Amino acid sequence: MKIVLAYSGGLDTSVLLSWIKEAYDAEMIAFCADIGQAEELKGLEAKAKRTGASKIYIDGKGNDQVRFELTAAALAPDLQVIAPWRDERFRKAFPGRQQMIKYCKRREIPVQASAKKPFSMDRNLLHISYEAGILEDPWMDAGNKKYHGSFTTLSVFPEDAPNKPEFVTIDFKKGNAVAVNGKALSPLGVMKALNKLGGKHGVGRVDMVENRYVGMKSRGVYETPGGAILHFAHRQMESITMDREVMHLRDSLVPKYSELVYYGFWYSPERLALQSLVEESQKNVTGTVRVKLYKGNIMVAGRKSPVSLYNPRIATMEADPTKAYNQDDATGFIRLNALRLKVAAKVQRKK
Amino acid sequence: MKIVLAYSGGLDTSVLLSWIKEAYDAEMIAFCADIGQAEELKGLEAKAKRTGASKIYIDGKGNDQVRFELTAAALAPDLQVIAPWRDERFRKAFPGRQQMIKYCKRREIPVQASAKKPFSMDRNLLHISYEAGILEDPWMDAGNKKYHGSFTTLSVFPEDAPNKPEFVTIDFKKGNAVAVNGKALSPLGVMKALNKLGGKHGVGRVDMVENRYVGMKSRGVYETPGGAILHFAHRQMESITMDREVMHLRDSLVPKYSELVYYGFWYSPERLALQSLVEESQKNVTGTVRVKLYKGNIMVAGRKSPVSLYNPRIATMEADPTKAYNQDDATGFIRLNALRLKVAAKVQRKK
Amino acid sequence: MKIVLAYSGGLDTSVLLSWIKEAYDAEMIAFCADIGQAEELKGLEAKAKRTGASKIYIDGKGNDQVRFELTAAALAPDLQVIAPWRDERFRKAFPGRQQMIKYCKRREIPVQASAKKPFSMDRNLLHISYEAGILEDPWMDAGNKKYHGSFTTLSVFPEDAPNKPEFVTIDFKKGNAVAVNGKALSPLGVMKALNKLGGKHGVGRVDMVENRYVGMKSRGVYETPGGAILHFAHRQMESITMDREVMHLRDSLVPKYSELVYYGFWYSPERLALQSLVEESQKNVTGTVRVKLYKGNIMVAGRKSPVSLYNPRIATMEADPTKAYNQDDATGFIRLNALRLKVAAKVQRKK
Amino acid sequence: MKIVLAYSGGLDTSVLLSWIKEAYDAEMIAFCADIGQAEELKGLEAKAKRTGASKIYIDGKGNDQVRFELTAAALAPDLQVIAPWRDERFRKAFPGRQQMIKYCKRREIPVQASAKKPFSMDRNLLHISYEAGILEDPWMDAGNKKYHGSFTTLSVFPEDAPNKPEFVTIDFKKGNAVAVNGKALSPLGVMKALNKLGGKHGVGRVDMVENRYVGMKSRGVYETPGGAILHFAHRQMESITMDREVMHLRDSLVPKYSELVYYGFWYSPERLALQSLVEESQKNVTGTVRVKLYKGNIMVAGRKSPVSLYNPRIATMEADPTKAYNQDDATGFIRLNALRLKVAAKVQRKK
Repeated sequence: MKIVLAYSGGLDTSVLLSWIKEAYDAEMIAFCADIGQAEELKGLEAKAKRTGASKIYIDGKGNDQVRFELTAAALAPDLQVIAPWRDERFRKAFPGRQQMIKYCKRREIPVQASAKKPFSMDRNLLHISYEAGILEDPWMDAGNKKYHGSFTTLSVFPEDAPNKPEFVTIDFKKGNAVAVNGKALSPLGVMKALNKLGGKHGVGRVDMVENRYVGMKSRGVYETPGGAILHFAHRQMESITMDREVMHLRDSLVPKYSELVYYGFWYSPERLALQSLVEESQKNVTGTVRVKLYKGNIMVAGRKSPVSLYNPRIATMEADPTKAYNQDDATGFIRLNALRLKVAAKVQRKK
Repeated sequence: MKIVLAYSGGLDTSVLLSWIKEAYDAEMIAFCADIGQAEELKGLEAKAKRTGASKIYIDGKGNDQVRFELTAAALAPDLQVIAPWRDERFRKAFPGRQQMIKYCKRREIPVQASAKKPFSMDRNLLHISYEAGILEDPWMDAGNKKYHGSFTTLSVFPEDAPNKPEFVTIDFKKGNAVAVNGKALSPLGVMKALNKLGGKHGVGRVDMVENRYVGMKSRGVYETPGGAILHFAHRQMESITMDREVMHLRDSLVPKYSELVYYGFWYSPERLALQSLVEESQKNVTGTVRVKLYKGNIMVAGRKSPVSLYNPRIATMEADPTKAYNQDDATGFIRLNALRLKVAAKVQRKK
Repeated sequence: MKIVLAYSGGLDTSVLLSWIKEAYDAEMIAFCADIGQAEELKGLEAKAKRTGASKIYIDGKGNDQVRFELTAAALAPDLQVIAPWRDERFRKAFPGRQQMIKYCKRREIPVQASAKKPFSMDRNLLHISYEAGILEDPWMDAGNKKYHGSFTTLSVFPEDAPNKPEFVTIDFKKGNAVAVNGKALSPLGVMKALNKLGGKHGVGRVDMVENRYVGMKSRGVYETPGGAILHFAHRQMESITMDREVMHLRDSLVPKYSELVYYGFWYSPERLALQSLVEESQKNVTGTVRVKLYKGNIMVAGRKSPVSLYNPRIATMEADPTKAYNQDDATGFIRLNALRLKVAAKVQRKK
Repeated sequence: MKIVLAYSGGLDTSVLLSWIKEAYDAEMIAFCADIGQAEELKGLEAKAKRTGASKIYIDGKGNDQVRFELTAAALAPDLQVIAPWRDERFRKAFPGRQQMIKYCKRREIPVQASAKKPFSMDRNLLHISYEAGILEDPWMDAGNKKYHGSFTTLSVFPEDAPNKPEFVTIDFKKGNAVAVNGKALSPLGVMKALNKLGGKHGVGRVDMVENRYVGMKSRGVYETPGGAILHFAHRQMESITMDREVMHLRDSLVPKYSELVYYGFWYSPERLALQSLVEESQKNVTGTVRVKLYKGNIMVAGRKSPVSLYNPRIATMEADPTKAYNQDDATGFIRLNALRLKVAAKVQRKK
């Protein structure tokens, strides 16, 4: 039997590699998705092999059991999933961290038997999140000076950012960012460039209490400098190129779309249906946005587009040969939009 | 005949007061709603009377023709609305600003015959907006140093804000802010206090292209320091007191609710229906939020509530006598949520 | 220990009463909610006591494990739920129906050891549902002549209904049916009256494949004569008394509301939030609807209301002193609603 | 100048052809879209030419001013629209029907100078609608025996339909009906076949009060036999082939989509965005539905599909090698879905 283990090289997955190999008498294949952990991937192959893996694949977010398993259900419905945390044998063998460290020592599994960190941390290309430990108290101020050495893997605190603003232009094509400061980049390149620029100016730092799919609330601190700039600039691009009604419709579906992604339903048919609508909504979102980064702030400093729907001439009528807008039109527009309100008001009055 | 004129004392409404009085041979009553214009209201009564009004009422956002008329339709369906901008006689008499200034001089109507401002401006308790003129070009950077004397009625630019952060606590009761820094305040008092605090630190400055009800896009710069703090703090308060599903449902309706308020449908039955839902959603939103204001940033520095739904113990199981969360439960939860995805994947594979 | 058992007196719950009593060494209290099962409740108390219950309560739809347990979670979060179908001991003891029948015989538990029915059936005040067995094939025609003796507990097949139509009037007050054929009735009385009238004419018969909360599709045949008339007549009442925008908003939320009720989230905060909106939407839904029942059809034969928003005079302008609608108004209404479409079309053309 | 007139050959458009030709001194081109009026199109060309048209095009629903003009705005933004009903000169010349008839006589325009019909009527491929006149009273029963000669252009009343049911099978491919009773047909062919079958059995007759875009309510009687069958059968097809979440999402958007079509926004970007979602939702809606038509009823008599998501084996576990559903899974599924309800109930209790 071959078992593929989602492997990070940390204490937990090191124990799992060894324990599952024995418990199931299986050949172990370690898999590590490169989702932007950067330097954390170094030396992973050697470590995996020393711990007992026959092979390791490092390849292409899904950071937890629900997301992994829903994705497996959609892509490989016959795959059998082993989740040792939900296996009583495993939980009995390892009631806590200490037992894991001992187990590794006994078997000479190479882990850094570090003291318990005061919070846990999870990283990918889009963000780093911190949670648990000292962050569990929602009244605790994670921005306090004494934490200025923590929570700063990707970005500085606004107070520590440069005193001089920096301007960045981002080019969009059909809703996708395709260039930063005039330089054409791949999607990965865009994220890396914006993570660096945003991190320097302390933007995209978020402290929130979120609602997990399994039913509980959870407090987390996030660094997402590039994502924050991208989201802000994209909205600015849309503001001059996207139709009003398309925007209102799309916005009403954002909570649903976000929920699906957050819960792990990336490969669900409902996400694909929403994606079709989103893609259709983006076909005109092309142009350039200029933003100013300054001590935690992302501010707009300009937007332009060859397919802009914004035309200041319409209101003023100056030099508008189409005479698209006419003050007289407002009379009928208002009167018909008010008609049902008037009828109802009269009915109420009669009563 | 009595005609009530929505009156501000500026050039336009001064001309209207005089012109309508004559055109309709009517008794003119000037009405000015105090919606937070502050010092702009001084001396208004005397001015109105000198211009020809028999009475003036200054009493308690509806800033334009659509909002005024929809509200009139709902509250006073038989009221006849006179909109001189849509009356050809008026438009012929006053093709531009110069004719208005001459008219006032001729009749000794007291107006400040100022040169045309490079943009227009509109103020109420919640915000000041600037638009038109030099703002019409969406690529123009309204945050440029040379404008640091403009667009700063309620707030400074982030660059000009203090170097030291300031902390503010806001108490909420059933969704409403009831105290700032521990001091109980009326809703008006809360807005005034937060406008001052936020303005000092340069928060709530917005530059946007919006979608007007009459069908065109329009670029505006807003100052809304108090509103920005209130919105941020309220969301933080909700994050520990509001049920996940209620929040997702409410969020999906925010675009509709916003649209109704923005378009002028405050007194519509659909706004009232949504309001019922919103109020029900707020009944548990009680507690305290602490925010940190710093050079344009609003950051959370703590939230607490006597009715918090956030309980870090649930995840860890430590000292949770209810054992509300159990690792084993995840197995069934995931398997049943994945069931339809598996069935569909198998059907696709067979095909 | 006291254990309350949801008890129907059928084979399953008879076995459970006896088995749980022994397995948990507990005092058993049988509970049977009167949700409209009618004659099926007769003799239940004697049967429960003979089977081992110390008490039986028959009192006031929640027909399955999910609905029962979600309701318990919301109303009595500390209540411990025992679900023997999910207890391996129980499943081993009773792999099938035969073992249950034997168990009852051995212990002299009074059950009708009937042969397996070709489908299962579930009844409450609102409907009777049939499923499983011969109904599992979705191509099977449950309306075939040979089944005209089955699936007819509450209603006849349309083919067997009278040849003469029957007219029924229903009075509504704030959205609730309060009288049938002019006779004031309680909500229960309305359902009973309409179930009888509708059943006679074969209306409200539904054959559907539904989507269960636990992730699978399931085919069922329903009889819901009273519910079908009520739903139809209520919509008709709304059509002349409910504002257009309120109706469109409410309709967009119907799938969510239905889902919550169907899944068992009656006592959830999101259902309560939606309920507030629904109640606000109903405050004007007052008047009378006349329907005609004929061989499976429910047809409208009239609707009237003292607060009707329908006014045929508006369109024709005859004798409409308010001149609410004016042909000229359409010009401006259409032009402004078309404005964004024109701007976009011109942008596309230029490109 | 060339003016294209939407022309039906009835009294109104005959007058318009002649009046506009003179009023604008223009060459008139009559355009008549063949949207299923059937025999009403006969002799139209000769009539148009005799009335003054230089050409007539009969080609390819938009039945009123709003729909026509919104479509023109989207497809031909520079086209100038002439709407004589909103032209004061026209309204003065023709205050009523009598003046039109006289005008035609005077100019020998060939119209049937019939007495005023007791209601108006509008026809296309999908339906015939009747409104105004005697239908204006919403309490009037349009199904009364005395009207059995009226409102029956496409269908009979249920009472007059055959006593024997008729079975029809419809094949679907990706959401589109492609065959009736096994015979492959074009979309037009499907509509024609179902209109005939449904009309014979009196199905698809609707009496409703609808909400017009211009703000008023309006009562109409519709015949739409083919559309009713298609809608019913399509839903049945979806019930075994469409994912639950896709269906709930789509259903929540139906009110918006319907509104856009009804109001005339077919060529709007928001309709196109929704269309993308709808098309994605239909890609698996393939198979066969069998319906039974009987005296106004459409009943399902079977549905089957090669890509059915309905699998009765899942529930029973018999012969389900995937063991997709497991009774034990329900425990965790319910416990986690109940978690937030329990936490909230405990918080409320403490309070």
